[in-house]
Amino acid sequence: MKLSIMRSACGSLRIHSACPGSRVSGLTRRCLPVGPANNRLILRTASASSGGTSNKLAVSFGKQSQNGDGFDCDSSLREVVQSTKEAMLALQGRNPVVQPLLVIIQAGEDDQLLEINKKMAGRIGLNITQICLAKECSEDEIVEEVLKLNEDPRVHGVYLHLPPAYITSRVLNTIKPEKDVDGISDLNMGRLVRGHLSKGFVPPIASAVLDLLEKHDSALEGKTVLLVGGEGPLGVSLQCLIERSGMVALKGQWSSKSLRRQAMQADAVVLLGAGNMDLPPTWVRPGAAVIRCEPTLETDEHAVEMSSKSGLGYLTAAYRSQNVVGSCSRWLQEQQYRPWHLHSLKLQPLTPVPSDIEISRAQTPKPVDQLAEEIGLLPEELEAYGRSKAKVRLSLLDRLHKQPDGKYVLVAGITPTPLGEGKSTVTIGLVQALSAHLKLNSFACLRQPSQGPTFGVKGGAAGGGYAQVIPMEERFYFHWDHLNSQCVPLHYRNTANNLVAAAIDARMLHEATQSDKALFNRLVPSVNGVRRFSPIQISRLRRLGINKIDPASLTPQEVSTFVRLDLDPSKITWQRVVDTNDRFLRKITVGQASTEKGQIRETGFDIAVASEIMAILALADSLVDMKNRLARMVVGTSRSGQPVTAEDLGVSGALAVLMKDAIKPTLMQTLEGTPVFVHAGPFANIAHGNSSVLADKLALKLVGRDGFVVTEAGFGADIGMEKFFNIKCRASGLRPNVVVLVGTVRALKMHGGGPNVSAGAPLPKEYIDENLSLVAGGCHSNLRKQIQIAQLFGVPVVVALNVFKTDTQAEIDLVCQIAKECGASDAVPCHHWAQGGRGSLELAQAVNEAASRPSHFKFLYNIEMPIVEKIRTIAQQVYGADDIELSPEAKAKIDYYNQQGYGSLPICMAKTHLSLSHMPDKKGVPTGFVLPIRDVRASIGAGFIFPLVGTMSTMPGLPTRPCFYDIDLDPVTEEITGLF
Amino acid sequence: MKLSIMRSACGSLRIHSACPGSRVSGLTRRCLPVGPANNRLILRTASASSGGTSNKLAVSFGKQSQNGDGFDCDSSLREVVQSTKEAMLALQGRNPVVQPLLVIIQAGEDDQLLEINKKMAGRIGLNITQICLAKECSEDEIVEEVLKLNEDPRVHGVYLHLPPAYITSRVLNTIKPEKDVDGISDLNMGRLVRGHLSKGFVPPIASAVLDLLEKHDSALEGKTVLLVGGEGPLGVSLQCLIERSGMVALKGQWSSKSLRRQAMQADAVVLLGAGNMDLPPTWVRPGAAVIRCEPTLETDEHAVEMSSKSGLGYLTAAYRSQNVVGSCSRWLQEQQYRPWHLHSLKLQPLTPVPSDIEISRAQTPKPVDQLAEEIGLLPEELEAYGRSKAKVRLSLLDRLHKQPDGKYVLVAGITPTPLGEGKSTVTIGLVQALSAHLKLNSFACLRQPSQGPTFGVKGGAAGGGYAQVIPMEERFYFHWDHLNSQCVPLHYRNTANNLVAAAIDARMLHEATQSDKALFNRLVPSVNGVRRFSPIQISRLRRLGINKIDPASLTPQEVSTFVRLDLDPSKITWQRVVDTNDRFLRKITVGQASTEKGQIRETGFDIAVASEIMAILALADSLVDMKNRLARMVVGTSRSGQPVTAEDLGVSGALAVLMKDAIKPTLMQTLEGTPVFVHAGPFANIAHGNSSVLADKLALKLVGRDGFVVTEAGFGADIGMEKFFNIKCRASGLRPNVVVLVGTVRALKMHGGGPNVSAGAPLPKEYIDENLSLVAGGCHSNLRKQIQIAQLFGVPVVVALNVFKTDTQAEIDLVCQIAKECGASDAVPCHHWAQGGRGSLELAQAVNEAASRPSHFKFLYNIEMPIVEKIRTIAQQVYGADDIELSPEAKAKIDYYNQQGYGSLPICMAKTHLSLSHMPDKKGVPTGFVLPIRDVRASIGAGFIFPLVGTMSTMPGLPTRPCFYDIDLDPVTEEITGLF
Repeated sequence: MKLSIMRSACGSLRIHSACPGSRVSGLTRRCLPVGPANNRLILRTASASSGGTSNKLAVSFGKQSQNGDGFDCDSSLREVVQSTKEAMLALQGRNPVVQPLLVIIQAGEDDQLLEINKKMAGRIGLNITQICLAKECSEDEIVEEVLKLNEDPRVHGVYLHLPPAYITSRVLNTIKPEKDVDGISDLNMGRLVRGHLSKGFVPPIASAVLDLLEKHDSALEGKTVLLVGGEGPLGVSLQCLIERSGMVALKGQWSSKSLRRQAMQADAVVLLGAGNMDLPPTWVRPGAAVIRCEPTLETDEHAVEMSSKSGLGYLTAAYRSQNVVGSCSRWLQEQQYRPWHLHSLKLQPLTPVPSDIEISRAQTPKPVDQLAEEIGLLPEELEAYGRSKAKVRLSLLDRLHKQPDGKYVLVAGITPTPLGEGKSTVTIGLVQALSAHLKLNSFACLRQPSQGPTFGVKGGAAGGGYAQVIPMEERFYFHWDHLNSQCVPLHYRNTANNLVAAAIDARMLHEATQSDKALFNRLVPSVNGVRRFSPIQISRLRRLGINKIDPASLTPQEVSTFVRLDLDPSKITWQRVVDTNDRFLRKITVGQASTEKGQIRETGFDIAVASEIMAILALADSLVDMKNRLARMVVGTSRSGQPVTAEDLGVSGALAVLMKDAIKPTLMQTLEGTPVFVHAGPFANIAHGNSSVLADKLALKLVGRDGFVVTEAGFGADIGMEKFFNIKCRASGLRPNVVVLVGTVRALKMHGGGPNVSAGAPLPKEYIDENLSLVAGGCHSNLRKQIQIAQLFGVPVVVALNVFKTDTQAEIDLVCQIAKECGASDAVPCHHWAQGGRGSLELAQAVNEAASRPSHFKFLYNIEMPIVEKIRTIAQQVYGADDIELSPEAKAKIDYYNQQGYGSLPICMAKTHLSLSHMPDKKGVPTGFVLPIRDVRASIGAGFIFPLVGTMSTMPGLPTRPCFYDIDLDPVTEEITGLF
Repeated sequence: MKLSIMRSACGSLRIHSACPGSRVSGLTRRCLPVGPANNRLILRTASASSGGTSNKLAVSFGKQSQNGDGFDCDSSLREVVQSTKEAMLALQGRNPVVQPLLVIIQAGEDDQLLEINKKMAGRIGLNITQICLAKECSEDEIVEEVLKLNEDPRVHGVYLHLPPAYITSRVLNTIKPEKDVDGISDLNMGRLVRGHLSKGFVPPIASAVLDLLEKHDSALEGKTVLLVGGEGPLGVSLQCLIERSGMVALKGQWSSKSLRRQAMQADAVVLLGAGNMDLPPTWVRPGAAVIRCEPTLETDEHAVEMSSKSGLGYLTAAYRSQNVVGSCSRWLQEQQYRPWHLHSLKLQPLTPVPSDIEISRAQTPKPVDQLAEEIGLLPEELEAYGRSKAKVRLSLLDRLHKQPDGKYVLVAGITPTPLGEGKSTVTIGLVQALSAHLKLNSFACLRQPSQGPTFGVKGGAAGGGYAQVIPMEERFYFHWDHLNSQCVPLHYRNTANNLVAAAIDARMLHEATQSDKALFNRLVPSVNGVRRFSPIQISRLRRLGINKIDPASLTPQEVSTFVRLDLDPSKITWQRVVDTNDRFLRKITVGQASTEKGQIRETGFDIAVASEIMAILALADSLVDMKNRLARMVVGTSRSGQPVTAEDLGVSGALAVLMKDAIKPTLMQTLEGTPVFVHAGPFANIAHGNSSVLADKLALKLVGRDGFVVTEAGFGADIGMEKFFNIKCRASGLRPNVVVLVGTVRALKMHGGGPNVSAGAPLPKEYIDENLSLVAGGCHSNLRKQIQIAQLFGVPVVVALNVFKTDTQAEIDLVCQIAKECGASDAVPCHHWAQGGRGSLELAQAVNEAASRPSHFKFLYNIEMPIVEKIRTIAQQVYGADDIELSPEAKAKIDYYNQQGYGSLPICMAKTHLSLSHMPDKKGVPTGFVLPIRDVRASIGAGFIFPLVGTMSTMPGLPTRPCFYDIDLDPVTEEITGLF
């Protein structure tokens, strides 16, 4: 038995006894050891009036039954100890690491009752921690200790071994009901009275008394038990338990004239609050048992004498230990995967469909902590941000690592019009249908909307109509600035990005204006006369082949190598980012103030979603992985041609710190109450265009084996889906079961030869009137090709036709028919926008069906193929190009990357989403073209090579009348107007 | 009686009856109206086993007491109705607007019991809303409705009028206990059993039965009441109440052989769960009363007959109404100012003082919702962000508008060394002393730290040692990027700022490349064939003097005036911002990409704290005010010399939306558990340097009349304090009671002629050894002058000497002595860094004492004085300059501002904080200098004129070895290392 003593911040003494397996020998033989004279049993219960009364307990074997007949305390104790030990074994079988821990808060030193509790705990194998407060401690001190124990996941039970006056209503209701193993809180008392025992605890003393009654020699079932003086909570508990166990509880009063008669007729008598009073022996029927539970505050010789003969104290301690083991077991149970009990929000869609904001405001989202509980998240895995959003901690992955993953569904699209074809709404409609209508667990994983997510053009931000994420006002912020997880820390992604940029320029300035020695002295400063390398610097030294620890031991050459990154200003690839469409920052000159001493250079800003840090956030599968990726990011090249990394700049640790909360996905919900993760938001044209690996992984654990995780890839399947498979699935190791390919009659007509579609301009009439030949043309060209692309990867495809009100039945039928002819497993129309989940029921059934079939997933290319070959494979097999054409710049870069050992990274093509080719105006299935590779970049941290196909802007602009003109805030109601 | 019916989203019918004052005539005469045959009384209580049992109630006047002797139901009802009406009146006297509202959730149509409840509510003047679910509604539907009612502050009671099987454990425990007027939840049941009735509710039926028993003709006090068949929760409640009211409760069983004898001996009998059973008349003692409460699910002719004779149904309904009024009254009480019951966190400072992060980690902060409750915030006023931070809603100001403000203390400093002198730690130490030791309510209002808050130099972020804001990891983010409220939306301040910048450049490009007509058509687009101005555009038209609504009615000249802001690129004053020290962005050229068609111009980035939006956030006193200020911001000048505002750009509504959450201060706590607001963070040298008006106002309401709000002004009193008085107090209307002037022996020695102090370099020995003459020199120069500056404003000054371990007692005594000679009300040493609040006890006492004296606050200058005179007044009276010297540029700007009507704004000097003068190396009290005004800017939205004194950079740089080299993250424990 290890014993550790610690002093808490407020001066209380903590004694920690770790005593599994130790035995108290006397107890194994006999349950009635004769203790010292002041062996008091103090039970923490609060009386109705004073808030606390302590009870002294004794089993009196009556004048009638001197030899212990009637009650067999010994066997009861043996049984409780035995069953509790078995529960311990079962518990440790499930989790060998966990140790049930009882914490005792006491005022002053140990007494006999504590000794009994400690012995019993030791016998059963519990850990005990004693918190010894001063004898005269304040309510605040007790509350402070209790609050700490409430928060501590290692603590399974709290026992207040305190004078009754200390156990105020505030104190007893501060204990978390889950840890209130004495069952003294109001809530646990209410649960006992109501019989809701699966959650609360029966007070150990009540259990002990009931046990003795139930095991009484003469079976008491149906017999009468007289409770004398049981006005307080203990009396009420006992009465409820007695009645529930089939005995008849009668209550009697000490002052009642009929007490004698009541007692003589009772089969057992429990004396509560007797003080020095006792029943005259003649009042008790021969053979009837009497149990005494006396409240007493002071040492009382008579009571002590009774008590010292009694085994009830041990039995109570044993039941307390049993409650602790039970609490720990419930806690462990909580840690296990729990089946969902998702509460769907009812929808009554109106016709015509109101505006998105009206729909959103008409629905009250569930509080996020309720949603989290419904899907089996633990409170400690949640970081709430306001009422309807919360970050989810990655520790979930450890907790549920044995849990099999659910089914993994990717939503991709055909080549879209500039208006977008509603992949997000399909995603949301699908999970609404799966959850609320098919009653299958499902989770949507979203990134930021795939189009128009700016001040410039309104667009579907995380759904619309009756398939959206609510509350919309919160999504607004997503919409706003291209982030898809708006809780605090994602902002730090920009800070992180721009910190790197600032570090680059500052470092170049400092290197240009300082000697090696001055740089070294500053980079490795003397602190109290000692110079030391930081871990980040040691890491750089290793990479440079300098295996030294002592700064003084570096040669001048080594110092120079170490201090000079020697960045080539013309080869800095790192750009700053902003969250705004700020076209004037596409190309800028920095460093023009005189303080920068002429170190001007040209650079530019990207929109934040295009940043490598965003890609890393989306691809990392743990904090460790993210940190390593951040350190590896290459920001430019030295004059001698060496890549310079974030770690070389010394900034990698700080970046990891900035991003440590951003890595947690944000939980929200759909209009029908389905959980949604919103996390990371790279664009699919200029980045890899998929939501985060971690959100998908967390969701796959949560939905369980038969559940569904629906994740979305940006833009057309040719870019978003191809990157999902070749980049994201490689990074995550996850394999999709089904691809849902979203199309619209509008886009199909465009691919079939319909006129140009552009944002802001009215739709030509071809798109409003039925036109089967245009539809058929689109199906046989772009839709067929996109299905084939999905099939390249061996995954079943379900085509989801996102139905608009102008679509005719003939058009809808035609699409579904051709899609199936082209190889789709199924093809169904979806009406989620107008009808919510019910409108996507057919899709949900089709997906469920397709997911039950085998998926023969394979990558498109071998990762070890040369870079050029990988690019060519994508260009030819996915885009349908005849070949690729590399610019000299692209060629040189590829050579350089090969030489640097980056040859075996996957490819992330930066290509327009408006055509399968690089030419946005070529619709359908363009052929006979050569794909021009203008330049090639590398995101070494994110882990891909990044060819630029044609001209791709990484910074959008604002139109003449950005939608912010309509946006306004009512400062009184705080309602946002003009938003959607 | 108004009746409104609405259909809820899930198809339930809502009937809203507003019926205050209406009378149900029959009831005022008689409490026993003979109802229709199926007049059933259904009480929502859940039995232990099934989760719900409905009780039919009847007072049987027995075969013995046919004429109603025994019970006087009529008088009981009259009394309850009367007392409830009086409670209503009292309640409406306190708040004439509030209306107690009972919501009934029912399955199916009204029945008699509902009629009784509605009549009774009407008689008392309650409002009622009925939610009629379908007869076959699901548990989910009920829970969904209950959850909505829980959230609705207008609802004070929820009554589930549902079949017993519907009232599951989940349902009854979903009702918020505060609205559970039937007392059916586990928690309220436990409260009743424990006698914690100040929070729960007694089930109305139990109250009714008890009432009848208590008022029984033959006084029952001390007499015996037999409860027959009361095994369920109702029996338990009744038993507790009966016992607590001084009667003796006996329990009997229907099946018990002794029932007859028990009954015959009882003074009253309450029959529970009798069904069709009844006591034979001969079993009941003559004169004894019998009350029947029968659970029955179906219409039961016998029971109905009993019931129709009974007044118990009305009495129960009356008690339910009473509970609703009580609930409303508690709710109103909650809305009132509540005295604090702040629970201080205990400190046991160690020697030597550990690192800040060790100290922070050794203390467990209170959960922020607990802290909020302790200081009288309502749950709905809080938006939690994680466990230890929350935004506080401004609605608090309305709720407590009648509450007198507390005392207002400003912490300012003498001219600091570059290391800072610890104003933040003094602020925190002071509130720790006031709260935890003097037991006076206090609140600290902080902005970001006053020095080194960057990656560059480590510095005290929101305190240090034993006077700090915890948890430190959260502050880290403050420290990080100059924000002081890191909850989500402050990030939007940058987005907001840069959105304006993007809008400026994009607008110039569009104006340069489009005709008037094209611009007009885009700015006022045709939507479905109709052109309309947005409200923001109408506002611009008004300012232009064009009072037209119809876009078609504008003349070509008016169109041109409207569409062309005609910004002069050389006169754009708006800069972009970043959160990083990025010196290369101080001066840049933008628009160099070919897509921007040669519209290049020079501009720059500022550090975010210098932005006008930050200043607005700090100065706004409501959402309305903030919105107006944002709209007024001037971003540049047109070629014709007119100011162009954010509203002209059409972006003001969007800005308000972006900032709507940022305006709410963030609540955190000190190491000793004192509340702290962290909000807005302008620098004091390049901005106005004070935390937000709103944080101060909220805190002043919360602390109450005798409490203290301690707010901090940046840098030396010459800039931070002067701006606090002349700018912030003008904006807020608040008047400070005391100024605390912080000094250190170190800074005083510097002012006394000590050698140069600089960050990073070791301190010269003068600062380590005792040197009384240097100290005296500093006191007689800078300290005296700063005291005098505070006295210019008529506010008492307490000097707080922030003691370092190298300070000697003689030095400390000397400072305190001279400070008092120089006019300080008091001067005391503070040891908060080493000792926490206890070390600042003397300061707290001195501040408390000074605050009890009259303050004769006055402004330094009349706001109507010419701009030049205001600048000169500050220069001469505060800085001690001989005069000012305006550059030609400054002169021209002032002329322009006067001409634009900006002449009567206060002045915000941008001056170094390292000297009273503009020359950072002039310490002590520089004299004989002329203050050069290099330029003058105007922040029209923030509301001040902004002279630049000498060269002031609005963008710091990174040093060669920024502190990020040491920062790292342990990806397993998630602990941050190397931070402080």
